[in-house]
Amino acid sequence: MNEFDLIEKYFKPLTQGHDTLEDDAALLSIPGGQELVVTSDTLNEGVHFLEGEAPENIAHKALRVNLSDLAAMGAKPLSYQLNIAFSDKPDEIWLKSFTNALLEDQKTYNIFCSGGDTTSIKGKHLSISITALGKVPEGKALRRSGAQSGDVIIVTSHIGDAYLGLKALRENLDFPQAIERYKKPQPRIHEIQGIAQYINAAADISDGFLADATHIAKASKLGMDIDISGFEFSDDVQKVLDEGLMMIEEALTGGDDYELVLAVQPENAQTVTEALKRLGCSPFIAGEFTPNALEYTLRDGEKNISIGKDAGWTHF
Amino acid sequence: MNEFDLIEKYFKPLTQGHDTLEDDAALLSIPGGQELVVTSDTLNEGVHFLEGEAPENIAHKALRVNLSDLAAMGAKPLSYQLNIAFSDKPDEIWLKSFTNALLEDQKTYNIFCSGGDTTSIKGKHLSISITALGKVPEGKALRRSGAQSGDVIIVTSHIGDAYLGLKALRENLDFPQAIERYKKPQPRIHEIQGIAQYINAAADISDGFLADATHIAKASKLGMDIDISGFEFSDDVQKVLDEGLMMIEEALTGGDDYELVLAVQPENAQTVTEALKRLGCSPFIAGEFTPNALEYTLRDGEKNISIGKDAGWTHF
Repeated sequence: MNEFDLIEKYFKPLTQGHDTLEDDAALLSIPGGQELVVTSDTLNEGVHFLEGEAPENIAHKALRVNLSDLAAMGAKPLSYQLNIAFSDKPDEIWLKSFTNALLEDQKTYNIFCSGGDTTSIKGKHLSISITALGKVPEGKALRRSGAQSGDVIIVTSHIGDAYLGLKALRENLDFPQAIERYKKPQPRIHEIQGIAQYINAAADISDGFLADATHIAKASKLGMDIDISGFEFSDDVQKVLDEGLMMIEEALTGGDDYELVLAVQPENAQTVTEALKRLGCSPFIAGEFTPNALEYTLRDGEKNISIGKDAGWTHF
Repeated sequence: MNEFDLIEKYFKPLTQGHDTLEDDAALLSIPGGQELVVTSDTLNEGVHFLEGEAPENIAHKALRVNLSDLAAMGAKPLSYQLNIAFSDKPDEIWLKSFTNALLEDQKTYNIFCSGGDTTSIKGKHLSISITALGKVPEGKALRRSGAQSGDVIIVTSHIGDAYLGLKALRENLDFPQAIERYKKPQPRIHEIQGIAQYINAAADISDGFLADATHIAKASKLGMDIDISGFEFSDDVQKVLDEGLMMIEEALTGGDDYELVLAVQPENAQTVTEALKRLGCSPFIAGEFTPNALEYTLRDGEKNISIGKDAGWTHF
């Protein structure tokens, strides 16, 4: 099978009847009164996912990390571009699993593939770049800069699980649910839609809770008072924290959870957490945004743990 | 320098004052009555450009092949997403040359960088994916399917030069202009704007003239009558054709020229070619679209060269 045959058989069905591969570029309508939201993420084998990872897991992760960015903006998915560089001529079993997983997510999140590029790359490692497009009513996008002093910091659901999942994979520990969380993030696309009007600012937790909450604080020129006594963890994470197998700092700074950090006016906090609970999430209040820019306090109830100016981790 | 510092110093200036890196995704306005045009191309070191190629050439090529797709749709550039995977931590001299070349093209083609992803990749080879966004008045995009039987096939300027350029690089031949054409394509962004209303269908010549003209014929369910006696080549290409160093089939099937193949009603052909000439192009008439779908004739004046059903080359 040559490139064109592979595209025809495996990638064209991802367009789900849109004729976006017929031309040099895809043509998309943006309904009036909507703004366009655009995000890109690249996943490289051996860096962002394990070598020889199952194709369905690669597909889910590659698309969902982009969808999580759309969710953080309060956007509805529109389409995505799939750029995939193969080190070897891909075998059809691999391609079938990969594209079936994408199709499954396309249905779940109401998005289609509008195009992309399949190429060959030297070396032994697959590289996937996805650019996802979404739409949001004009002026209604959730910006990191929109938080107000006094806003409650709400996290949409448990964090630390992806960190535990990666640790479990590396150390061969028995935490299947955490591994699933690491491999198959749950972008909060549907969850954000009903509550967007109550949210002043949002960011997704890709770099780690502290880093991503800090992104909001910085953009909004605010400080943060984080109280870990309000954090609720999954049973697995709570267990390893209790047993000292994982430190709470690791849950706070570990990336890849793809929950959302939200800034919400106190009077709307209950509405937001109850709506999230109805959708099966386990939201919790992580603290609040404070007036003094760049002053961060991390405490456990009455006990101060650290006072900082920055937090996070970097990709290289 | 860590990732965030590198982004701040080298990549953020590419956003040219747009605050699209402040959030999880870029937020873009699409003016009313416009449709969105989206295209992606990946360039991998050692496959799509030579190993150790100068950073400015990589930058020009990566952006311009995408711009050429926008031109083929009759679209005006809006923004692009830059996904770049580094095999080594990039040195700053490299980054400076790379981003300066992008900035130069951003000015020439009126586009800005709306975001992307910088990652590290295993192995020794750089990989760059760009997704470019453009806009076109509603219903006015140039589609491959719009050609009519009897339409003249116009090529915007000389072809075969990129093929000669690559050959010159490989065989160490002295054709600096052809090498420049191969390394630094000239997307017909500006040229298409004044003539779009006279064009029924368009495709850019990335895979080779015959393959890309065939794309139009297929999408429009037409045949083609190609007459190479009407082709005009650059002095360099004409010279190697005359000397037998290159065959005319190579000029017709070689890729990477990034001229446009246009389908134009006969009564508008002169208007289009004259407009292109005024902009410094050397347009020529390559033949015409014929009523019988998938019937292709290639001739030299009165002499038939071949009759085929398909033409082109594949990437792997």
